[in-house]
Amino acid sequence: MTFDIKQAAAEAKAAKSAIANLSQGKRKALLESIASMLIDATPSILSANQRDVEQAKSAGLSASMIERLVLDESGVKAIAAAVTEIANQDEVLGSVANIKPLPSGIQVGKMRIPLGVVAMIYESRPNVTIDAAALCLKAGNAVILRGGKEAQHSNKALAAVLHLALEKAGLPTGVATVIPVPDREVMAQMLELSDSIDLIIPRGGEGLIRYVSQNSKIPVIQHFKGVCHLFVDAHADLTKALPILENGKTQRTGVCNALETLLIHKDIAEQALPKIDAMFTEKGVKVHACEKSLAHFKTSEAVGAVEDDWHAEYLALEIAVKIVDDFERAVEHIQTYGSGHTEVIVTEHLGNSQRFMREVNSSVIMLNASSRFSDGGQLGLGAEIGISTSKLHAYGPMGAQQLTTEKFVVYGDGQIRQ
Amino acid sequence: MTFDIKQAAAEAKAAKSAIANLSQGKRKALLESIASMLIDATPSILSANQRDVEQAKSAGLSASMIERLVLDESGVKAIAAAVTEIANQDEVLGSVANIKPLPSGIQVGKMRIPLGVVAMIYESRPNVTIDAAALCLKAGNAVILRGGKEAQHSNKALAAVLHLALEKAGLPTGVATVIPVPDREVMAQMLELSDSIDLIIPRGGEGLIRYVSQNSKIPVIQHFKGVCHLFVDAHADLTKALPILENGKTQRTGVCNALETLLIHKDIAEQALPKIDAMFTEKGVKVHACEKSLAHFKTSEAVGAVEDDWHAEYLALEIAVKIVDDFERAVEHIQTYGSGHTEVIVTEHLGNSQRFMREVNSSVIMLNASSRFSDGGQLGLGAEIGISTSKLHAYGPMGAQQLTTEKFVVYGDGQIRQ
Repeated sequence: MTFDIKQAAAEAKAAKSAIANLSQGKRKALLESIASMLIDATPSILSANQRDVEQAKSAGLSASMIERLVLDESGVKAIAAAVTEIANQDEVLGSVANIKPLPSGIQVGKMRIPLGVVAMIYESRPNVTIDAAALCLKAGNAVILRGGKEAQHSNKALAAVLHLALEKAGLPTGVATVIPVPDREVMAQMLELSDSIDLIIPRGGEGLIRYVSQNSKIPVIQHFKGVCHLFVDAHADLTKALPILENGKTQRTGVCNALETLLIHKDIAEQALPKIDAMFTEKGVKVHACEKSLAHFKTSEAVGAVEDDWHAEYLALEIAVKIVDDFERAVEHIQTYGSGHTEVIVTEHLGNSQRFMREVNSSVIMLNASSRFSDGGQLGLGAEIGISTSKLHAYGPMGAQQLTTEKFVVYGDGQIRQ
Repeated sequence: MTFDIKQAAAEAKAAKSAIANLSQGKRKALLESIASMLIDATPSILSANQRDVEQAKSAGLSASMIERLVLDESGVKAIAAAVTEIANQDEVLGSVANIKPLPSGIQVGKMRIPLGVVAMIYESRPNVTIDAAALCLKAGNAVILRGGKEAQHSNKALAAVLHLALEKAGLPTGVATVIPVPDREVMAQMLELSDSIDLIIPRGGEGLIRYVSQNSKIPVIQHFKGVCHLFVDAHADLTKALPILENGKTQRTGVCNALETLLIHKDIAEQALPKIDAMFTEKGVKVHACEKSLAHFKTSEAVGAVEDDWHAEYLALEIAVKIVDDFERAVEHIQTYGSGHTEVIVTEHLGNSQRFMREVNSSVIMLNASSRFSDGGQLGLGAEIGISTSKLHAYGPMGAQQLTTEKFVVYGDGQIRQ
């Protein structure tokens, strides 16, 4: 029997006022109770997770996929700790910004309110189920979660905790729905439900995100790939550039804020490339080098770059390298091949730093800092639901505030329009 | 021969950096030159408009449609004046908000940037062509305008002015494209071009907006209908409620911020309805009354309300009236039938005013003020491109700032992630 998503979405819509109008104190208490109930439910969560892991193994999933799937006791503790952190974050709802008196005598401000019903579509990692639910509840939204098939038993166990906490708080369980049977058909039906769902956030592989974007009748915020660039300007301080390159490419390779392309200004290439070559050799980074730079890689594994390399999100110890003639060519390259995620310039030149910050319009632009800082926690948002690479509504790391909107509030004393 | 929208959108995408990176002073000068060139081009604009009006007459268009189409010399002056006003508004681009130092030593802020390429789909009124172009240019966006077929000669004449001003400023004409042959086929093709167009704003009839929302592969901000409610609370001051009702329903009927439904608390109905009946009679307002209120309308034209009346956007001297038992029923009615546009409460009760402002989540919520203030100009935004009734990105009246987004900017001094 397939899951009745239309019914579930209608229940979420009916439940959204209950969570939106919950007082700040009660919303905090709800999140705290989810955190403590997660700890209490550790045995049932771990045994459900065990089932997923066994099925994944017998289905022959890759070791890295299984690694992302596995939960242990400390994993459950970490999930609960994230919920506690979200509970303790600043309140995002209800604040009224910039109340201004206007010539007509009315006063106008903007009040931050929930979006309504937020649906999230994601893959494997079970922690996303709780992270996303907690952020949506913090922002006063009802939430519908459609996780990956491979994590379905874990997600069911986590859903049971969410429902227990909602019931204890006297709230309808429609506030948080975890789709129990994550088949394609249910997802396709969900994308049609623009009358009840206000926002869809797909997070996962390129195919999934494209499918959702192309087929959704509901607004979508894409969390797309990260083809992050480092531009080493002619005026770069190489004692900064080298660690930033090493940190960005090698600290973790499977993440969207890892570096994928290095652009080097021709005037500093001779000086920089031997050092870079040595570092790549030591770290085992494979290079896809442009024609001009290829000969400089004497000890590291290097091949000639092809057009596809400029688009590549390697998510591995591999990098594309290109020597550029000037600042403009670097910006052009990023505009042509970037994915709107994160771009870094290393330079000591004030004018070039200002131009780069202004003219490159990816979601996070950095001067003399590692791309690895492109993350909600590192940028001061607390937890994040993901990193938006679409410009509408939210661009870059999204926290609870990015799951809200603002309405106008007008205070009068009987004013009418003349 | 149909218009090559794919080519036009590619040209807009290629031109977007030119307008995005134009200095504040040059962008202001561009807008001022559009304003003065509009005045210079008055004869050609009026003669093109004359052609549209003649065709509309021979096609048998309604008097009100023709009225919206007609331009005269003072009309062109008003369009030019709006452009000058936009030129003089505060700059929206480049400001960096809330730079915060973080524990890692990096400093993080958000910089306001253009969206890229904005496409607007609208009907009849030729002034929208220039208003929308000016707001998009102010916000640093390239713009594609698809006006109504009935205004096509006027729009071509206005496009010629835009292109002249762009050329004089040394900018590619791809910065502002007016689609010369506004057939359905071109629109359908345009909705597929998510690689080059960043946002679609449809503004017009319900059918148009539904079509665009359902078929667009590009993010859409809807400018939908206004089913605006006035709730006269039990604790209302009728000396405020009556003028707010009269102003909201009768000042202009064909606008989206006109009142369409009146909700009256049962405890004040006896006292209020005779006065309301007298005012409706004087102003010639036709009433669609609920069962309980119908008998109170003794002199005005009144009929029993049916379900459709609660959904109706009359855009005429007609109103739906319902007596509600309590505050909660009023809020429920608005949540069920509202269109997310504007809702008004008249009350002297502090608690009810606060609950209404908090719990009703339409885009503009008003206390003791006329719904007719729900307009970008009246709410202090300057000019507006329309009123968004979708919650994503912008909700309520949209000015130039709502045609921008924010990126993260990170300032470091060599920091890497630990």
